[in-house]
Amino acid sequence: MAKVNGDYLKLPGSYLFSTIGKKVREYQAANPDKKVIRLGIGDVTQPIAPKIIEVLHEAVDEMGHAETFKGYAPDLGYEFLRDVIAKKDYQDRGCYINADEIFISDGAKCDCGNIQEIFSRDNTIAVCDPVYPVYVDSNVMAGRTGEYDPATERFKDVIYMPCTKDNGFIPEFPKQVPDLIYLCFPNNPTGMVITKDRLQEWVDYANMNGSVILYDAAYESFISDDNVPHSIYECEGARTCAIEFRSFSKTAGFTGLRLGFTVIPKDLVLEGTALHGLWARRHGTKYNGAPYIIQKAGAACYTDEGRKQINEQIAFYMGNAKIIREGLSGAGFEVYGGQNAPYIWLKAPDNLTSWEFFDLLLNKANIVGTPGSGFGPSGEHYFRLTAFGSREDTLEAMERIRNL
Amino acid sequence: MAKVNGDYLKLPGSYLFSTIGKKVREYQAANPDKKVIRLGIGDVTQPIAPKIIEVLHEAVDEMGHAETFKGYAPDLGYEFLRDVIAKKDYQDRGCYINADEIFISDGAKCDCGNIQEIFSRDNTIAVCDPVYPVYVDSNVMAGRTGEYDPATERFKDVIYMPCTKDNGFIPEFPKQVPDLIYLCFPNNPTGMVITKDRLQEWVDYANMNGSVILYDAAYESFISDDNVPHSIYECEGARTCAIEFRSFSKTAGFTGLRLGFTVIPKDLVLEGTALHGLWARRHGTKYNGAPYIIQKAGAACYTDEGRKQINEQIAFYMGNAKIIREGLSGAGFEVYGGQNAPYIWLKAPDNLTSWEFFDLLLNKANIVGTPGSGFGPSGEHYFRLTAFGSREDTLEAMERIRNL
Repeated sequence: MAKVNGDYLKLPGSYLFSTIGKKVREYQAANPDKKVIRLGIGDVTQPIAPKIIEVLHEAVDEMGHAETFKGYAPDLGYEFLRDVIAKKDYQDRGCYINADEIFISDGAKCDCGNIQEIFSRDNTIAVCDPVYPVYVDSNVMAGRTGEYDPATERFKDVIYMPCTKDNGFIPEFPKQVPDLIYLCFPNNPTGMVITKDRLQEWVDYANMNGSVILYDAAYESFISDDNVPHSIYECEGARTCAIEFRSFSKTAGFTGLRLGFTVIPKDLVLEGTALHGLWARRHGTKYNGAPYIIQKAGAACYTDEGRKQINEQIAFYMGNAKIIREGLSGAGFEVYGGQNAPYIWLKAPDNLTSWEFFDLLLNKANIVGTPGSGFGPSGEHYFRLTAFGSREDTLEAMERIRNL
Repeated sequence: MAKVNGDYLKLPGSYLFSTIGKKVREYQAANPDKKVIRLGIGDVTQPIAPKIIEVLHEAVDEMGHAETFKGYAPDLGYEFLRDVIAKKDYQDRGCYINADEIFISDGAKCDCGNIQEIFSRDNTIAVCDPVYPVYVDSNVMAGRTGEYDPATERFKDVIYMPCTKDNGFIPEFPKQVPDLIYLCFPNNPTGMVITKDRLQEWVDYANMNGSVILYDAAYESFISDDNVPHSIYECEGARTCAIEFRSFSKTAGFTGLRLGFTVIPKDLVLEGTALHGLWARRHGTKYNGAPYIIQKAGAACYTDEGRKQINEQIAFYMGNAKIIREGLSGAGFEVYGGQNAPYIWLKAPDNLTSWEFFDLLLNKANIVGTPGSGFGPSGEHYFRLTAFGSREDTLEAMERIRNL
C-alpha cells in the first residue's frame, strides 16, 4: 500500500507568507475603503528594463522560425549566459570560477531547496536564526531535521545560530560542528552583511572541519560598501568548501521571469566524489533547463545598456531603503539593514511581539510587513520591511508610521 | 564532515542521450563531409505557432510596464491557465477535474522526477521495461531501488514489468503488488497505446491494492484512435488512485519554452493525508512557478486559432511517423508504434543488438536513433526512431535505410 513521506508531516502550519496573505485579505474585506501598502513579501514592482524587453522580443521571434527555433536547452544552461556570468560576476572580481562550474536554473529558491538532496541524509545542517524558511523546510522534507518542538519553535536535529543585536546579526561558530552550513549575505531577513574578513573565517572553519557552506548571495547586487564581499569565492579556499546561489529576481526584477544560477567549483570533492558531477546528474535527470528566451534576457543584463538600466532600478530601491531607514529612525525605532540590502529589520516598539506589531501596523497604519518571528525564534520582537514598493507607497508608509 | 548522497553513486554510467551524443560527435568529427540525420532524441523541429508567438510578444510587453508587470506567479499557476486546462483537457472529455487540482510547472520531466519525493522512502515502485529513464533514476537518487546489478541490468528492489511483442507492449500485473506504478501512454519509447478497458483494469487494480498510479500522458495529443484514452481520469475510480502528468513540449513545441502540469485529485488520500496538500507544499517550498509569459503562451494553445495551428504541427509529425512506419515495413522491418504516438519502435534486423544496430545505422546510413536497450533490458534488439524531424530528413532517412 502506498504511503506518504512522513517527513512532510513534520512541517508546522502553513508557509509564513500564506498566513500574512490571509490576514491581509480578511482586513481588506472588512475595510474595503482602506488603502493597504504592502512592504511585506520581497516582490519587486519596477518593470523589466527596456534593453531586456528588447532582447526578449528578439528571442521570441527566433522561436517562431524553423531556422532559429530552439528546442531543449543544454542541461546546465546556454554557453552564452554561463560565459558572461563567469567573466563579469567572477573573473572580473578576481574570483577563479569557470563557465562550466555554473549551472543555470529557474531561480535561487529552487536551487536552495533542491541542493540538500545531493548530500547524505544523516548530515547535520546549521542555519542562522532568523532564517529564510526554505533552507529548513527542504531539509525537513528530506528527513534531516527530526521532530519539531512547538515549545522552542525548533527542529530537534537542526543547529541554530542566533543572529541578534548582540552579535551584530552575524552568526558565531556553533558548539557542534555542522556538516552543511547555510549562510545568506546580504541577509534575508535582517538586511545585514558580513565583512570579507569574517566570511574568510567561516571558509577556514569549513575547510578545517570538512563542512560545506551553502552560500545564498541572491542580494549581492545591493551591496555598496567596499569591504563587503559579493561572492564567497572572494575568500581564499572557498573553492574546496562552498556552493554559491545567485538570482536575477531582485537584481533585474525577474521574480516573474524566473532565472538564477548555482556555482559548484570542481575542487569541491567529498570522499573522492565531486559535488559538481552529482548536481549535473540531478539537472540531467530532474530538470530540463530554463527557457531559451529567459536565458537570453539574463544575458542582456550583462550588456552595458542592460547593466545601466538595472543599476538605476537598484539605486531606486536603495533610495526607498534610505527613506525607510531614516523615517523609522526619525520616529524613534531601532533599525538595522537597508544599507547594502533591500531589507530593513526593525525592533517592534514597547516590547510588542512581532505578530502584535504586525496587527498594529495593519490595523492602525494599513501597512503590511513581515513578522520577524516568522523567520525563527530569534526574530521575535523584530519586523521586516522591504524596499521594493513604489516611491509613493514608501513615502506614504513612513508618513503613516510617524503619525502612529 | 559533509558526505554525499550515496544513492546517487548507484546510478550506472551516464545518461543514455549523453552516450549517443558522444558517439555522434565522434563520428561527425571523423567524417565531416557526411550529413547525419538525427531521429534519436525526442526534440521537436517545428517553430512555435504564430498565435503563440503573438501572445508571447504581448506578454513580454506587459512585463515592460509597471501597470501590467507581473512578479511572483501564484505557486500553483495562474488561474487563467488552470481554468482553461480543467475545462478543455478534462471537463469537455467528461473527466471530473477542477482547476484547483492542476499544478502548473516547467515540464513533465521535472514533475515525473520530483513526484516520488512525496511518498515514503520504503514504497516499492513498478516500471515498464523498456522505460523512460527518469522514473527509475529519480527513485535511485531517493534510495528507493537498492543496488544495480550489471548482470541483469536491473535494480534489486524495482519491480520491472516487461513490455514485449508477446504482450503487445502492455504491462501485465506483476507478481508482487507495487506501491507506486509508473505508466506512460502513448508510450515512450515503444509508441504503443493502451485501450480504455485495459487502463480501467489497472485503475481497479490500484484501488483494490492501495497503490498509486503515476500516469505520464505527455503524448496524449498524438492519439487518433477513439478507444484510446487521453487521460487516466476517463476511467472510473481514477480520482482515488492516479496522478497524471501532461506536457506542452511535444503538443505545442515547448521543449525550449518549458511548460507542463500535474493533476492531483483531492480524493487521492493515503492514510488520511491528501497528496494534493503535500505536492502543494513542495511547490511552495522548492519551486517558484513557471514564467508568466510562458503561462500566457500555454493558454494561447487553447484558443481556436492556437489549437488549429498546433493540430497542423501534430498532423505534420504524424505524417512523418507514417512515412517511417511504411518505409520500414516496406524495407522488411518489424515495426510498432507511430500510429497514436510520435515514436516508432522497430526490431533490429539479423538479431543485431540495439547498439550494434545503432552503430550500423550511424556508420552506413548516417542516421541517429536510440538503442532500445538503453530503455531497459526488454528493449534489447529494438530501436526507437522519432517523427520529430523535418519532412526532408525523414524522407531521406527512409531512402537511406532502403538502400542499406
